[in-house]
Amino acid sequence: MTEHLDPRTAVVSLAAELAAKGWLPATSGNLSVKVQSAPLVMAITRSGADKQHLRADDVLHVRADLTLAEPSPFRPSAETVVHVRLYERIGCGCVLHVHTVFNNLVSQLYWAAGGVPLAGHELLKALDHWERDARVTVPIVDNFHDLQQLADAVAEAARPDVPGVLVRSHGIYAWGQGAADAKRYLEAFEFLFEYVVRYRGLTGLDSGGML
Amino acid sequence: MTEHLDPRTAVVSLAAELAAKGWLPATSGNLSVKVQSAPLVMAITRSGADKQHLRADDVLHVRADLTLAEPSPFRPSAETVVHVRLYERIGCGCVLHVHTVFNNLVSQLYWAAGGVPLAGHELLKALDHWERDARVTVPIVDNFHDLQQLADAVAEAARPDVPGVLVRSHGIYAWGQGAADAKRYLEAFEFLFEYVVRYRGLTGLDSGGML
Amino acid sequence: MTEHLDPRTAVVSLAAELAAKGWLPATSGNLSVKVQSAPLVMAITRSGADKQHLRADDVLHVRADLTLAEPSPFRPSAETVVHVRLYERIGCGCVLHVHTVFNNLVSQLYWAAGGVPLAGHELLKALDHWERDARVTVPIVDNFHDLQQLADAVAEAARPDVPGVLVRSHGIYAWGQGAADAKRYLEAFEFLFEYVVRYRGLTGLDSGGML
Amino acid sequence: MTEHLDPRTAVVSLAAELAAKGWLPATSGNLSVKVQSAPLVMAITRSGADKQHLRADDVLHVRADLTLAEPSPFRPSAETVVHVRLYERIGCGCVLHVHTVFNNLVSQLYWAAGGVPLAGHELLKALDHWERDARVTVPIVDNFHDLQQLADAVAEAARPDVPGVLVRSHGIYAWGQGAADAKRYLEAFEFLFEYVVRYRGLTGLDSGGML
Repeated sequence: MTEHLDPRTAVVSLAAELAAKGWLPATSGNLSVKVQSAPLVMAITRSGADKQHLRADDVLHVRADLTLAEPSPFRPSAETVVHVRLYERIGCGCVLHVHTVFNNLVSQLYWAAGGVPLAGHELLKALDHWERDARVTVPIVDNFHDLQQLADAVAEAARPDVPGVLVRSHGIYAWGQGAADAKRYLEAFEFLFEYVVRYRGLTGLDSGGML
Repeated sequence: MTEHLDPRTAVVSLAAELAAKGWLPATSGNLSVKVQSAPLVMAITRSGADKQHLRADDVLHVRADLTLAEPSPFRPSAETVVHVRLYERIGCGCVLHVHTVFNNLVSQLYWAAGGVPLAGHELLKALDHWERDARVTVPIVDNFHDLQQLADAVAEAARPDVPGVLVRSHGIYAWGQGAADAKRYLEAFEFLFEYVVRYRGLTGLDSGGML
Repeated sequence: MTEHLDPRTAVVSLAAELAAKGWLPATSGNLSVKVQSAPLVMAITRSGADKQHLRADDVLHVRADLTLAEPSPFRPSAETVVHVRLYERIGCGCVLHVHTVFNNLVSQLYWAAGGVPLAGHELLKALDHWERDARVTVPIVDNFHDLQQLADAVAEAARPDVPGVLVRSHGIYAWGQGAADAKRYLEAFEFLFEYVVRYRGLTGLDSGGML
Repeated sequence: MTEHLDPRTAVVSLAAELAAKGWLPATSGNLSVKVQSAPLVMAITRSGADKQHLRADDVLHVRADLTLAEPSPFRPSAETVVHVRLYERIGCGCVLHVHTVFNNLVSQLYWAAGGVPLAGHELLKALDHWERDARVTVPIVDNFHDLQQLADAVAEAARPDVPGVLVRSHGIYAWGQGAADAKRYLEAFEFLFEYVVRYRGLTGLDSGGML
């Protein structure tokens, strides 16, 4: 549905959907859709906005150097720098960053392991892994206090076969060619994280016992 | 409410309801309602559609050989073949396939046992088991990579007394004479699966301790 | 809000609210509001209706002998007899019967104890227990296959200080002077049941460790 | 969004949002926004209102001595006295009091410790803790039966660095300069409480293992 929307409207629509799931609590999270590639301009949520009530003027057009491409009384989210680095590194068209209890739990439970192993789940197909016996690991980076350092760490950890990186006790960055892809990946990650957490709670085993 | 709707509209309505429950994450799942029996034509969700925004033209009229009975730019879901085999085997009027964390959990927890035993629950009546001391087992089949093999396994596992089959770490296929029956069965399964998982988490016992 | 509604409309409104919480899955549950006392007439949900889409003509006016006080093509819920017995025994104005995973869990976990002990919770005030150190026990009766027997058991178990009775692996009957009271009691019960189940899962202790 | 609303409308809007999350069950909880400081007048929910259907006339203008500043047939919530003491002590502009299963669980689990320790979580920034290695403790006070005693205990426990106080087996009082701040703090608290409870259930460790 977000396919045919202009970037600003797509961000408003994504905010409404993800906020309704409870994935953008306490004004946290930030969402962006690319407006143009060279030079980079993205439409991104402003800092401090309540995503449950996001309006068109809460979405800013921002350049790679964090200046505004269109005038606004607001400033972009402090984590815009992570979006910039992901657009530069991946060449994607949309970046979604959300905080959920389950993505925070897996980021801590699998911190020592360096990533969350996922295998043997049908929903890996929603992450574009259609091969038999698909197996991927979602990387986890530390929650660096310095946001430039965080941006570098996320971009460096990003792997071609997994469209997301977890930040420890913080949340996930997920991305896609467009808004619909990014949302599909994000929903698949969150489903799998909840599954992994609950399975571990029931059995003490990793990744649903499929490894 | 879906009783008096034409099949395409019934599918759109079912998608809206089940997506609102979070049962169709990441464009997963597929839903169909039979249009005619001989030869078989069904109205089924297209591949890759976001069920939270399903529109009438996201629902395709498809024949048993997977060709389109009405022109469309879209292609049917890859799992249409499972629906075909269930319509042929059961003679039902509606097939619902959804992925939930709880149906994934029971499919893995009871994989070694071959099925999920259910007994002593009032909601077995919603599965049309009104007899005293009702007891049923929901079959679980492996998540075959080959979809024709999956379709055969699901259809073969289907039992006359249980309107659903679980696929391991994948989801459930549930069916009914019409859309309302199929939805009632699906809601009953999901309630019972969540109950079984939570009871086992609390006590380590199977099926709510009623076996 | 249900205070000023006629009984039929109040039932439709209650159905919409409780179905939105997921408390009336798979067409289960039944809800009634008293129309008149002597002789008894109640407005009650018909058998088999999907409560997520309940309409005014899905609510029947029924007498104590289960005959219809107004013509309808539908028949009343099979559990109407439990409502009748509660109106007769308690003299209440509204009866709500719902199935939730958490009320099913407590009904099984506390079956051997004969009831769910509740103490030391602020929400006991929502059950009209404003006294210091309030302590109540919600009775649990067996899920008798014979509905007349079930009705007798529920009515007999009903205590003046607790506006609800659990039925084992089935659900709860809650009642009040009017629809607003009954809904308040039901929401308090469900909150407390979820609390008790989760606390026990975390600590192995009963009733939030307040006994 | 609540920034530009008059206090009464802001309370109605907050009630709708927080009730939709299930945080105001069984007519519990109370919400207020300051109308003026000297002398204090606040707009606060009336006693016993169903927050899922709150209307403008369910919000009362009340003075520090609990008299009505505008005529109304209703009386203010019994816990208005806690709001008064918080406005006097903190000088805040909005007070939100809600009951959730997770805030009840942490209030009991950490009762012996005197507070819930929180550290190493990104969402501490939503509580205005932007410093590296932020660490705060949410105080817990006993659920005094006498409401004046409760009000004194809550106000006395309030710390400048944490915009909330838990009441044991009861709920949380959270506050902010305005409605938007208070809601942001409340959503951050509830997210962190759910995280702490689930992490403890999985590992037996406190505060997500970050202490």
